[in-house]
Amino acid sequence: MKIRVYYEDTDLGGVVYYANYLKFCERARSELFFQNGMLPLKDGCHFVVVHIDASFKKSAKFADILEVKTKILEIRKVFVKLRQTIFKQEDVVFEMDVKLAFICNEKPSPIPKEFLDLFQNFSQEF
Amino acid sequence: MKIRVYYEDTDLGGVVYYANYLKFCERARSELFFQNGMLPLKDGCHFVVVHIDASFKKSAKFADILEVKTKILEIRKVFVKLRQTIFKQEDVVFEMDVKLAFICNEKPSPIPKEFLDLFQNFSQEF
Amino acid sequence: MKIRVYYEDTDLGGVVYYANYLKFCERARSELFFQNGMLPLKDGCHFVVVHIDASFKKSAKFADILEVKTKILEIRKVFVKLRQTIFKQEDVVFEMDVKLAFICNEKPSPIPKEFLDLFQNFSQEF
Amino acid sequence: MKIRVYYEDTDLGGVVYYANYLKFCERARSELFFQNGMLPLKDGCHFVVVHIDASFKKSAKFADILEVKTKILEIRKVFVKLRQTIFKQEDVVFEMDVKLAFICNEKPSPIPKEFLDLFQNFSQEF
Repeated sequence: MKIRVYYEDTDLGGVVYYANYLKFCERARSELFFQNGMLPLKDGCHFVVVHIDASFKKSAKFADILEVKTKILEIRKVFVKLRQTIFKQEDVVFEMDVKLAFICNEKPSPIPKEFLDLFQNFSQEF
Repeated sequence: MKIRVYYEDTDLGGVVYYANYLKFCERARSELFFQNGMLPLKDGCHFVVVHIDASFKKSAKFADILEVKTKILEIRKVFVKLRQTIFKQEDVVFEMDVKLAFICNEKPSPIPKEFLDLFQNFSQEF
Repeated sequence: MKIRVYYEDTDLGGVVYYANYLKFCERARSELFFQNGMLPLKDGCHFVVVHIDASFKKSAKFADILEVKTKILEIRKVFVKLRQTIFKQEDVVFEMDVKLAFICNEKPSPIPKEFLDLFQNFSQEF
Repeated sequence: MKIRVYYEDTDLGGVVYYANYLKFCERARSELFFQNGMLPLKDGCHFVVVHIDASFKKSAKFADILEVKTKILEIRKVFVKLRQTIFKQEDVVFEMDVKLAFICNEKPSPIPKEFLDLFQNFSQEF
C-alpha cells in the first residue's frame, strides 16, 4: 500500500509527525479488509490495538511516497500480531509490532472466523 | 477558552495547519456545553456544521497560546449561527461564521429546548 | 483524485470529522503540483489559505471512496481562487471556494510564473 | 497535565483513536519545557522519538478528562527515556516508554546541557 505524505502529516520539524506513522499503518490494516470486500467491523464489534512496539528509523518528508508492508506474526483466537514496516524506497522509515484484540461491548471477544481466515490467507507479507 | 499550539498542530511551514483552526473552534463549542454540565449530544442526536465562512488573518506558531471567543449571531428552531474568533494576544489570527444544524437519524431536526436555552443565555460573547 | 475514508478521518458521530474535508482538499491541491513534477513550494516561499467558504452537504462514512474535483475560478498575480467539490459517487458531500495567497518571509508575494502557468493550464476542472 | 477529549480525538468506535494518545503524551513533554520557560528546540535542533513501547489498557471517551504523568527513566548524553502514563481518574488508560534522541541537521547529537538539567530536576514524576 502506497501512501503520499501531505502537509497535514508533517510538523514544524519538516518531517512526518511521529503519531502519523500509526495512522499509515492503520490505513494498511483497513485496506486488507477493503481489498477483500470486507469491513474490519462486525455486529458492532471491532478490532482494537492493545500493544505496540515501534521504532522510528528515518524521517519521511512532504511529498514522499511511502509503502506500508504488513506481515502476520501470530494468529490466536482472541488476538493477532502483525509486523508493519514503512519503506521509503529501500529504506525502512518505521517499523512496529502491533497486537490487535477484538472487542464486543467493550469486552475482549473471539475474532470472527471470516477474519481469522483472512489473516490466515495473508500469512505471507502483503 | 485558551489553547496551546503543540507540534501536532503545526505543519512544515512552521505554523498551524489551516484545518486545525476548525478543531480549535470545535473545542470551544464543546466547552460551552461541558462548562454547563451538558454534552452536545442527546438521544443519539447531535450538532453538525452545515456552513462556514472563514478568514485566515495571521499565522500561529508552536508554543503560542491562543484564545477562542464565540459570539452567537442567530438562534432559530433548526439552526444556530456563531462567530468564532481566535486571538493571539490582541491580534486576530482566524475568524469564522459557522452555521450548525441538529441531526437525528441523519435528518435535520429541531434543536432541543435545553440547548436553545443554553445558547440564549450565552447570547453575549463567551 | 480519489480518497478513501479511514478510521482516523471519522469521529464518534460515525462520519468524517468536519475539519478533515479541508485536509482532503489540500491533498488534491498538492497532487496538482506533484502530478506535474513540482512541489507547491519555492525558495522557502509557499501558498497559504486566506479565505474559505464551505458547505457541508452530506456525510461521508468509514470506507467510503470520495473524489475531489478542483476548478480554478480566478487567477491573479497575488492570489488564486479555486472551487473544490468532494463527491461520493454522484452526490456532493462538501464544496468550498478557497482563496490562496503566496507568502515569502511571512509577507504576501507575487505567485511565481511556473505556478501561474500551471493554474492556467488547469483552467479546466481537474 | 490535564487533557480534555474532544470530537477530533475520537473515531467511529466512539473512543479515542489509538494514535492520539501519542499526541497527548507529546503535549505533556512539550509542557515540561513551556512550564520552565523553554522551548524543546535549540538552534534548529530538536528532539525526535526513536522508540516507543506502548500498552492500550482502557478506552477514553468524548468529554473525558485525562491526566498525563511523566516519569524519567534514564538520562544519557544522547538520549533520554521516559515513562508516560495516561489516567482517567484512577484508571490507567494508556502507558508508554518512549526514547527520545536529539537531532541536529538530521544527525543524532548530544542533548544540550540546559535540557539535561531540566530532565535531572524532574527526575521525579511530573
